[in-house]
Amino acid sequence: MYRYQLTVAYKGTRYSGWQIQKNARSVQEEIYKALNKIGFGKSKVTGSGRTDAGVHAKGQVVLIEGDKSFSPVTLKKALNANLPDDIRILQASLASEGFHPLRNAKQKTYIYRVRSSDVPSPFTLDYEWQIPYSLDLNQMRRCAFEYVGKHDFKAYCASGSSVKTTERTIFRFEVNQEDSDFGKVYTFTVTGDGFLYNMVRIMVGTLVQAGQGRISPDQIKKSLISGNRKDAGPTAPPQGLILDQVVYK
Amino acid sequence: MYRYQLTVAYKGTRYSGWQIQKNARSVQEEIYKALNKIGFGKSKVTGSGRTDAGVHAKGQVVLIEGDKSFSPVTLKKALNANLPDDIRILQASLASEGFHPLRNAKQKTYIYRVRSSDVPSPFTLDYEWQIPYSLDLNQMRRCAFEYVGKHDFKAYCASGSSVKTTERTIFRFEVNQEDSDFGKVYTFTVTGDGFLYNMVRIMVGTLVQAGQGRISPDQIKKSLISGNRKDAGPTAPPQGLILDQVVYK
Repeated sequence: MYRYQLTVAYKGTRYSGWQIQKNARSVQEEIYKALNKIGFGKSKVTGSGRTDAGVHAKGQVVLIEGDKSFSPVTLKKALNANLPDDIRILQASLASEGFHPLRNAKQKTYIYRVRSSDVPSPFTLDYEWQIPYSLDLNQMRRCAFEYVGKHDFKAYCASGSSVKTTERTIFRFEVNQEDSDFGKVYTFTVTGDGFLYNMVRIMVGTLVQAGQGRISPDQIKKSLISGNRKDAGPTAPPQGLILDQVVYK
Repeated sequence: MYRYQLTVAYKGTRYSGWQIQKNARSVQEEIYKALNKIGFGKSKVTGSGRTDAGVHAKGQVVLIEGDKSFSPVTLKKALNANLPDDIRILQASLASEGFHPLRNAKQKTYIYRVRSSDVPSPFTLDYEWQIPYSLDLNQMRRCAFEYVGKHDFKAYCASGSSVKTTERTIFRFEVNQEDSDFGKVYTFTVTGDGFLYNMVRIMVGTLVQAGQGRISPDQIKKSLISGNRKDAGPTAPPQGLILDQVVYK
């Protein structure tokens, strides 16, 4: 069995998400198909975690296991020659013994983009949540700061997901703003030891309500104590989200 | 007859170009359809010039003429509510007497983006010409400078186009480079009093050959004297091009 670690970037727009599923296009399935084309034999493809339909990745980490030996350089070139052009292998290396892309992940960073503009940009529809109202940057920063640390994020988890614990640690949560030709762009950058299903999108949905003056830092605190999904804001739409980086020890 | 001047932005990816044509989607037709929906009556839509399939615009200027009176603010809102989301009206105002968006244009600026990267970016496929080889910025700048001034651009015109004169004046031609997560991005910004059919794309195709060391400033000079299409480089693909701005007196 030969094992390789890949760093994969993809535009999620045309896919139903990372995970393979029936009657829908997935990134995982495209990698299986490309491995099949290059003669990797019976293979297994494991990602660092799922991404939803429309969500992008710049640094998804993937373990592939199969029957055939390649040099990492050849493997990267062969896969890129056989993948759709909205999925690219950025790096390939031999996987270290026992490496598991999900279980060994120490930190993940997600970036979410929101555009506040009277007229939405026709150029960034696939990459941003575009809203017509303005946001208070300082209020969003104060509220984002409440998420930093170790908390029970039960209120920030889509229903129906089964996990052992809803405790997670957020190391960093930055909110930045820049001017553009079409209004203002807000960038939410969050790093944690892991994230529950839809957790980033619910935090961003909550912070956007905070930016409208509808949620205070105290209400964020309350949501982290109550664990009640109703105490958090709505789920932000998928297209603004990108899995930026996964860090291993 | 009521006349309005619009500034229009669009992502050209899904369109066969600006100009209305049978059996294909065009930006002009979408504007006609939206005007029809808002009850503008028998209308006429005139652009500052055509853009090809896949070419974008941030500042296309459009004259609309019709039977119904709107306030410019209402017109902009009503059109944006009835246009596809990859076409947006940025500004609407009453057109001044005798205004014609093509004939009165004094300057046009186009921007073209080229990415030089070992692995192409999956995120910018609709907006860049991506190439796997590196480019010499200074050589491209020296060659671009040869285009500045009043020249006969006959060598830089797609065959089959009929124009009175192939003389045009280029006021500015800047080439810039910046680093990115996926290689380097080169931005070509060109301002002139007008452009022949495919002229910007042929100039950029020529400059990219210059950046590879295959064309010298002397060869650019020669192409401007000979007027021979074969003395210029290939036509760069459409998706890297954006009509940035049209300036009137």
